[in-house]
Amino acid sequence: MALTPTPADKFSFGLWTIGYNGADPFGGPTRPPLDIVDAVENLARIGAYGLTFHDDDLFAFGSTDAARQSQIDRVKQACADTGLIIPMITTNLFSAPVFKDGGFTSNDRSVRRFALRKVLRNLDLAAELGAKTFVMWGGREGAEYDSAKDIRSALERYREAVDLLGDYVTDKGYDIRFAIEPKPNEPRGDILLPTVGHAMAFITTLERPELVGVNPEVGHEQMAGLNFAAGIAQALYQGKLFHIDLNGQRGIKYDQDLVFGHGDLHNAFALVDLLENGGPNGGPAYDGPRHFDYKPSRTEDITGVWDSASANIQTYLLLKERARAFRADPEVQQMLAASLVPELALPTLAAGESYDNLIADRASYEDFDTDAYFGGKGFGFVRLQQLALEHLLGAR
Amino acid sequence: MALTPTPADKFSFGLWTIGYNGADPFGGPTRPPLDIVDAVENLARIGAYGLTFHDDDLFAFGSTDAARQSQIDRVKQACADTGLIIPMITTNLFSAPVFKDGGFTSNDRSVRRFALRKVLRNLDLAAELGAKTFVMWGGREGAEYDSAKDIRSALERYREAVDLLGDYVTDKGYDIRFAIEPKPNEPRGDILLPTVGHAMAFITTLERPELVGVNPEVGHEQMAGLNFAAGIAQALYQGKLFHIDLNGQRGIKYDQDLVFGHGDLHNAFALVDLLENGGPNGGPAYDGPRHFDYKPSRTEDITGVWDSASANIQTYLLLKERARAFRADPEVQQMLAASLVPELALPTLAAGESYDNLIADRASYEDFDTDAYFGGKGFGFVRLQQLALEHLLGAR
Amino acid sequence: MALTPTPADKFSFGLWTIGYNGADPFGGPTRPPLDIVDAVENLARIGAYGLTFHDDDLFAFGSTDAARQSQIDRVKQACADTGLIIPMITTNLFSAPVFKDGGFTSNDRSVRRFALRKVLRNLDLAAELGAKTFVMWGGREGAEYDSAKDIRSALERYREAVDLLGDYVTDKGYDIRFAIEPKPNEPRGDILLPTVGHAMAFITTLERPELVGVNPEVGHEQMAGLNFAAGIAQALYQGKLFHIDLNGQRGIKYDQDLVFGHGDLHNAFALVDLLENGGPNGGPAYDGPRHFDYKPSRTEDITGVWDSASANIQTYLLLKERARAFRADPEVQQMLAASLVPELALPTLAAGESYDNLIADRASYEDFDTDAYFGGKGFGFVRLQQLALEHLLGAR
Amino acid sequence: MALTPTPADKFSFGLWTIGYNGADPFGGPTRPPLDIVDAVENLARIGAYGLTFHDDDLFAFGSTDAARQSQIDRVKQACADTGLIIPMITTNLFSAPVFKDGGFTSNDRSVRRFALRKVLRNLDLAAELGAKTFVMWGGREGAEYDSAKDIRSALERYREAVDLLGDYVTDKGYDIRFAIEPKPNEPRGDILLPTVGHAMAFITTLERPELVGVNPEVGHEQMAGLNFAAGIAQALYQGKLFHIDLNGQRGIKYDQDLVFGHGDLHNAFALVDLLENGGPNGGPAYDGPRHFDYKPSRTEDITGVWDSASANIQTYLLLKERARAFRADPEVQQMLAASLVPELALPTLAAGESYDNLIADRASYEDFDTDAYFGGKGFGFVRLQQLALEHLLGAR
Repeated sequence: MALTPTPADKFSFGLWTIGYNGADPFGGPTRPPLDIVDAVENLARIGAYGLTFHDDDLFAFGSTDAARQSQIDRVKQACADTGLIIPMITTNLFSAPVFKDGGFTSNDRSVRRFALRKVLRNLDLAAELGAKTFVMWGGREGAEYDSAKDIRSALERYREAVDLLGDYVTDKGYDIRFAIEPKPNEPRGDILLPTVGHAMAFITTLERPELVGVNPEVGHEQMAGLNFAAGIAQALYQGKLFHIDLNGQRGIKYDQDLVFGHGDLHNAFALVDLLENGGPNGGPAYDGPRHFDYKPSRTEDITGVWDSASANIQTYLLLKERARAFRADPEVQQMLAASLVPELALPTLAAGESYDNLIADRASYEDFDTDAYFGGKGFGFVRLQQLALEHLLGAR
Repeated sequence: MALTPTPADKFSFGLWTIGYNGADPFGGPTRPPLDIVDAVENLARIGAYGLTFHDDDLFAFGSTDAARQSQIDRVKQACADTGLIIPMITTNLFSAPVFKDGGFTSNDRSVRRFALRKVLRNLDLAAELGAKTFVMWGGREGAEYDSAKDIRSALERYREAVDLLGDYVTDKGYDIRFAIEPKPNEPRGDILLPTVGHAMAFITTLERPELVGVNPEVGHEQMAGLNFAAGIAQALYQGKLFHIDLNGQRGIKYDQDLVFGHGDLHNAFALVDLLENGGPNGGPAYDGPRHFDYKPSRTEDITGVWDSASANIQTYLLLKERARAFRADPEVQQMLAASLVPELALPTLAAGESYDNLIADRASYEDFDTDAYFGGKGFGFVRLQQLALEHLLGAR
Repeated sequence: MALTPTPADKFSFGLWTIGYNGADPFGGPTRPPLDIVDAVENLARIGAYGLTFHDDDLFAFGSTDAARQSQIDRVKQACADTGLIIPMITTNLFSAPVFKDGGFTSNDRSVRRFALRKVLRNLDLAAELGAKTFVMWGGREGAEYDSAKDIRSALERYREAVDLLGDYVTDKGYDIRFAIEPKPNEPRGDILLPTVGHAMAFITTLERPELVGVNPEVGHEQMAGLNFAAGIAQALYQGKLFHIDLNGQRGIKYDQDLVFGHGDLHNAFALVDLLENGGPNGGPAYDGPRHFDYKPSRTEDITGVWDSASANIQTYLLLKERARAFRADPEVQQMLAASLVPELALPTLAAGESYDNLIADRASYEDFDTDAYFGGKGFGFVRLQQLALEHLLGAR
Repeated sequence: MALTPTPADKFSFGLWTIGYNGADPFGGPTRPPLDIVDAVENLARIGAYGLTFHDDDLFAFGSTDAARQSQIDRVKQACADTGLIIPMITTNLFSAPVFKDGGFTSNDRSVRRFALRKVLRNLDLAAELGAKTFVMWGGREGAEYDSAKDIRSALERYREAVDLLGDYVTDKGYDIRFAIEPKPNEPRGDILLPTVGHAMAFITTLERPELVGVNPEVGHEQMAGLNFAAGIAQALYQGKLFHIDLNGQRGIKYDQDLVFGHGDLHNAFALVDLLENGGPNGGPAYDGPRHFDYKPSRTEDITGVWDSASANIQTYLLLKERARAFRADPEVQQMLAASLVPELALPTLAAGESYDNLIADRASYEDFDTDAYFGGKGFGFVRLQQLALEHLLGAR
C-alpha cells in the first residue's frame, strides 16, 4: 500500500537527521554514531535522491586534512555507488565553543574571521561535490540580553560576510546560490533574522541579492506562531524560495523536528498543494529539493530511525495525492468560485484604468451597497475548509 | 516627582486609544463616547504634541458629507486652540461588514475598489490636515483557512493598491509617506505581512519603495514571540522605521494594548535606549513621533483613561532617564568593552583586505586557538545584563 | 456521503454559537440576530439532540420578567416541537459593565452579591428546564495587573460562591452538577483557574467537591500550549469530566472558536478515540454531551452558519470512524504491543510485592542491564504515529 | 552598593546550575566540570545557605559504591567546613538512555522498577544528609505522540510510585516531604502534570496527599503562558507550596533558565511581594528555601558563572526592598483601597447570612444599580499598576 518515491520527487535528507544520536538538553545520546556509507545506502533504499550535510557532520571539527579527505572520499564513493547526489551543503558555525557568541556576528572579531575561513573552505567543497545550494543557518547569531548585541552592528557584519561569500563564488565561477535559514530562537534567546520575512528583507541590502534566497523550515516559522504555507507563498512571490526544510512541530515550544506531517496537518496539506500545484489559484510552484530536516525521536533505535525517515516520504506523497484529488473535485472547484478565491487574481483596476477613472466610477463608492454585506454576501469559507478537511481525511 | 513632557518629545495618541469604549469579544462598552474636542484638550493637558485617527474614529462609517465636514472642522479648531498637530492619519478598512474579508485583498473585487476609494479620500484629508505619515494596518487582510486565500494573489493585489496610492500622492505632490503596520493574527486567523520582516520584504516589490516604511507595534511583534527592540533595530538599519506604536503586551496571547512599559520591561528599556541613543553602539536614532497605541483597560472610567494616557508618557520619560544613566556609568562602559560589544562595529576584514588576504592569514584559521574558547574567553553578558537591570531598577 | 448523527451521539450546541453575530474587537456584527425558534428548528434538522444557553442569550440582561418568561416559553415550545433537550445552561457574568472586574471575584462586594443572585435565579431556570449540568465560565474572574487582585482572596470568594450554590441545589433537591470551564486569558490578562488542572485542584477545596467537575474547551487549553486530549484523560482519571466544549484552535493566540477539527487534527483524533473508546488502553469513556462551543466565522452569512454547525458534527463522526478503524487494524494492535503501550497498564510492583521485596529483587537494579537501552530497546513510537496518521488520512 | 544576603534569606542553588557545562541541543560543553568542593565554597562565599543536587550531579550514573561514597563524603565535609546545608535533593530519572521513555511512567515495566529503586536509594541519602524536601521533576514522563502513551495508565503508575515512596518515608520515619515539579514540555513533546494546577489536582488522588506538594519553577509555568505569581498564590492557598525554583524566562519558548529577574520583571516583583509579604492583602507567606534553578549562559566562563549566581541573589534582595517600599507608600495604600483590593477579603455574604437572606435582600439585585457601572465605578487599576512600576523602577 506504500507509495513509491522516485528521484523526480527530489527527496533529500540531512546527514544530521538520520544521524542524530538522541542527545538533548536533559540527556546524552541513546544511539551510536551512524556511518556515512550506511547512511547513504539506506537513504537510497528508502527512495531519497539526495544527501546534505554540515562540514562537521562528515568530519569532526578540527579534523586533520587526511581525516577530512578520507570522509570526503567515502561519501563520494557511496554516492557514486548508489546514485545519490549532494544538492546542498552547509557549515556548522554553532557547535564548537569558539562559536558560543555566533560566527559571522560574534562580538569577537577573530571568531568572525575564523568563521569566514571555515565557510570559504566549505564552499570549495560544495563546488567540488556539485552542491547547488549553500544553506546558512545562523543559529548562534543572536543574544539573550539586549545590551549584549548591537543589532545594527550585527546586521552590518552579517552583510559583510554574505557579500564576501557572494564575491567569492562569483569570482570562482561556482554554480552555487545561498539560502538563509531563519529561526526565531533556540539556542539563542533571540536569533537575528528570526523569520522568513526578516531574512528576505535583509537580503535586499546585499550587494548581490540575486544570489541569496531563503531556506525556511516548517518548525522554525511555527515556533513564532506563523502560518508556514503563507510564508512560503510570500517567498515564492518574491522569487526567494531557494530551498526548503520539511518537518513537524506541535505549536510554540522548543524546536521539535518531528516527522513531516506529525505536526500541523492542515498546514502541511496546504503546503504540499502550494509546492506541487502553486496553491489555490495555481501558478509557478517549487521545483527544488524536498529536504527533510527532522530528528528521529530519542526513544527510537536504528529501526525507528529508518521507519521515521520513510514516514516523511510517505506522508509527503500521501498529501500530494490528497491535494490532487482536492483540486480535481468539481464541488471544490465550485466552492472556490463561490468563495471568490479566483477573483482575487483579477486586478482591482480594469486594464488601463487610472485612479481618476476609479474616482469617477460612482459604482465603486457613491453607489456601492455596503449594507448588502450585513447578513448577506457570505464567503462560504467554512464550507470550503470542510471540503479540504474531508479530502485530507480521504473521505470524499 | 512627575517628569514633564515637551513637544520635542513628540508624544502622540490615537483618537481610538483614549476613545476606546471598553467593548471586547465578551462584553459591550463600559464607557460612553469621548468627544473629539474633549480628547484634544486633555491630550494637550497631559503633554502630548499630536493626535492621530482613523477616518471612522472622527466621523462614523457612512457619514454624510456634512456630518463628516463638521467633525473635521471641530478637530481643526481644537488643534488650533491647543497647538496639537496631526502627524499621522490612517483608514479603517476593518470594522464595517463590507470589509469582513479585508479591504485591499478581499476576494471580492468590488470591495477592493471601494476600499481604494475610501483610502484615496482619506489621503486628501491627510494632506489637508498636514499629516506626514499615512499608516496602513491591514488587520482584515488575511484568512482563517489556507484554501480561502491565495496568498500570492493577495500580495499582488496589496502591491497593486499601494502602488496606486504611491502614484496618487506623488502626482498630487502630497508630502506623505506610508507606513505598513504588521500584525501576525487577530482579528484574522493569520494576517498578511505578519511581522516587520515580512512587511519590509514586501516593500521591496513596490514601484516606489522609498515612499513606504513600517509602523511596528510593540504588542504585535511580541504576539509572535519576537524581540521588539531587535526588530526595530533592523527597521532602522534598513531605513524603514517611518513611525512606531508603543504599548505593552504580556506574552503570546490576544492583543492587549496595555500601557507602554506594563508588559516586557527589559525590552522596553532596550527600545527606549535604541530610539533615543541608537542602542549599545549608538548611531542614528529615531526622530519621529512616539505614538502610543494602547487601550485604557475596560475596568476604568474616564479618570482611569487619562491616568493611563499619562502613564505611557511617564514610563517613557522614566526609561529615557534610566537609559541615560546606564550609558553614563563608567562601569557599564567598561563592561560593554569587556563583552566586546563595540568590537562588533569593526569590520571583520581590515580596510582593503580581500578574501585572498584573509585566506593567506594563518592567524585567522590555521593558527587560531579555538581551544581557548573552552573554559575561557567568557563574554560577561550576564554581568552586563545585571548592570542593565540595576539601572532599570534605579539601584545604581 | 454525509454521516448521519443520532440522538445517541448527544451533539449539542450553545445558542451563542450559531447565534454569534460576528462582532469582534475590531468590527461590529455582520449578521442579524437569530431567533430562538429558528435556532432550535435548524439544530434539530442538522442532527443535534441538545441546545444550551446563557441566561442573557435567551433574554437580554435587564429584561422585564414578562419578556424573560416569553422567551422561556418560546424555547420550551420549540424544544417540545422538535424533541431537542436542554442538557446544560450557564450564566453570563461577563458581558454587562457591572461585571467588568468579574462576578464571583469582583473586588466590589456588591457586584459579587448581584452575581450570586443572578446565578441563583438561573439555577432555578436550569432545574425547571431539566438541565443536568450548570457550567461556570469565569471569563472576567481575573486581572491584567498583579497588584489589582489578591489571588488568595479571590479564590476564597470563588469557593464561598460555589459552596453556596452547592448548598442551594442540594437543599432544593435539584439534579444538577456544576462544571467549571477553565481558560488562561482573554478577556482578562490572566484568568483565575487557567487550566483544567488548576480547576480540578481548586475543586478539592470545596465543601461538596462531588458536585463540581470541569468543562474543558479544546481551544482554551490549547491557548496555553497544552495537549487537550492529555488534559481530558487526567480529568477522566480523576472522575471530573462533567461536560466538554469541542471546537478548533490554531495554536497560541486569541480564542478562535473554529469548527471542531479545523485546528489540531492529530489531537482531535486522539480526543475522539479517548471519548469514544477510552484511549490507547481503553477503559471507561465519556458519556455526556458532545457540546460544540464554536463561532461561525465572521465572513459567513446564515448559510455559512448552518454549514459550519454541520461541519462540527460531520468531523466528529468522521474521526469516530477513523478511530474505530485504527483500533481494529491488527498491525496497529501489534505495533501498540511492540511499543509496550499495554504494559503501562500493569502495576510496577507485582501483586503483594512490598518495597522490601522490590529492594531485594536484584534483577530490578543491581543486575538490570541499563546499557541495553543505548542503541537498542527502541520503542517504535514513530512507526505507531505514522500508522495513526495513515488511519486519520483514510489511507489504510 | 551590593545588598548582603544572610542565611535567614534561605538562598539555595542546585549543583547542576553553577555546574552547568554549557551543552545545549546545538553545541557541546563550553566549560569544564566544576568540582563539588569548589562549588560549595563559592556558594558559601556569595551568601547561599544551601546546596541541592540530583544523585547523578554528585556521582555519575552507574558509579561504583566506592566512587559514590567518596563524593558523598566530600560534599559532607565541604558543607561542614562552610556551614552550608542541603535542604533538598532530587533524583535524575531523565538523562540516561534507560529513561528515554520516562522513569515512573515508562511503558517498559522493568524501567519503572529500576527507577523506583534509584529513588529509594536516593531517599536514604536524603535522610542521611538531612534534606527535608525531595523534589520530583518528571521531565521524561510524557510523550511526543498521543497513541504512544495511555495517560490514565501513566497517571496510575505515577500514583503507584508516589504512594510507595510515601509509605517508605513514613515507615522509615524520615522527615521528608515530596514536591512535584511541573513542566509543560521539553524534553518530551508533552509532559504529564504540565502545570502547578495539574500537579496539585493529581496530589489529591494519592494515599498520603499531606506528604506531597509542588515545586513550581518560574520558567516552566511561563512556558505555558501562565502568570507565575498567580499560580504560586493558588499553591499557597491550597497549602501546597513546599519548595520553589526561581529563574528567568522570556516568554513561550524553550526552557531558558535565565537569572531570576532577567525575564518578566513585573511578575518577579509580584512574586517576591507574595513570597515575602503575602501579596496585596497580606497573609501567610512562604518560609522555605529560595532556590535558584537557573543556568549560567553558555557564553560565560567561570567568572560569569559566579557573577550570574550572585545576580540571582542581588535581584531577589533588590525586589524585596522595592516591594517593602511599595507597601509602605501611603499613596499605594490609598490606591489599593480605591481599587477595592482589600474589599475582596470580605466575605460576600454577611456573617450568618443564608442564601435565603441574600435572596430577600432587594438591594443585592432588584434595587441594585447596574447602570452605575457604565461610565462610572472605575477601578483605578492602571493607576495602581503605574505606582507599582514606579516603585519597581525606584522612582518614588
